[in-house]
Amino acid sequence: MNVEFVNPFLSATLRVLETMASVEARPGKPFLKKEGGAQGDVSGIIGITGPTNGSMSLSFSRKCILKIVAGMLGEEMAEITDDIKDAVGELTNMISGDARNELGQKGYQFQIALPTVITGLNHEIRHKCNAPTIAIPFDTDAGPFVVEVSFEN
Amino acid sequence: MNVEFVNPFLSATLRVLETMASVEARPGKPFLKKEGGAQGDVSGIIGITGPTNGSMSLSFSRKCILKIVAGMLGEEMAEITDDIKDAVGELTNMISGDARNELGQKGYQFQIALPTVITGLNHEIRHKCNAPTIAIPFDTDAGPFVVEVSFEN
Repeated sequence: MNVEFVNPFLSATLRVLETMASVEARPGKPFLKKEGGAQGDVSGIIGITGPTNGSMSLSFSRKCILKIVAGMLGEEMAEITDDIKDAVGELTNMISGDARNELGQKGYQFQIALPTVITGLNHEIRHKCNAPTIAIPFDTDAGPFVVEVSFEN
Repeated sequence: MNVEFVNPFLSATLRVLETMASVEARPGKPFLKKEGGAQGDVSGIIGITGPTNGSMSLSFSRKCILKIVAGMLGEEMAEITDDIKDAVGELTNMISGDARNELGQKGYQFQIALPTVITGLNHEIRHKCNAPTIAIPFDTDAGPFVVEVSFEN
């Protein structure tokens, strides 16, 4: 996949979490995944179509997403409620929309589909693609999470 | 969402499972989901863009997908291996592609994104949309599975 597609998702994640949840996320170095998938307790997934087709996911541990959504809603969250699932759908929409806008400014016109939200302790997400998935690890004060981006060659 | 969008996914599911896995799936009556999500042990998800944006998921119990993939690969499957995950990605691609073609013949030109495959016992998938998700239940000799389709109003 085109490596130019990676940074817009990294910077969109930072911007959206800072703006929406007042959470400082610290990005690690993106890396190619040859096999295996992201693991998490709550994930958001969205499909992307355009010059090439792709998908993006955000995968959080329970502890990390409770902290992020507490920042969004301004109240402590103790369990994975419908509010948490709605918030993860919204974050997925906003991050992919923000990245799409940045890609549009670079001349790549993508469309984004509707998000889906997955819950279930320690589920695994694999992007099915003819090219390796790129994983962008992030750390927060409530623990790590991962953004994965996959586009066809 | 436009109810015309439902039947192409129902008939695509029947066609693809019959052709690829020699599995006879018996559809139940599609219904609107007001809340809750599909539960399964292995799911395929794909995003859809076009006249309206959407998403589709297939959610299988472990037993059901082992039987379906055994039919695809011509050998008994005993656990959720990478072959199973690849096969679920392929089924998701084929069913959504087949439905897209049928929708195209009706004058609706959609694009499909890349599939993602979720594994994890009893995970839940929710489609985030401003309209109710439509669930299409299917039964097979190896147990039930569900296709969910969600499109914006």
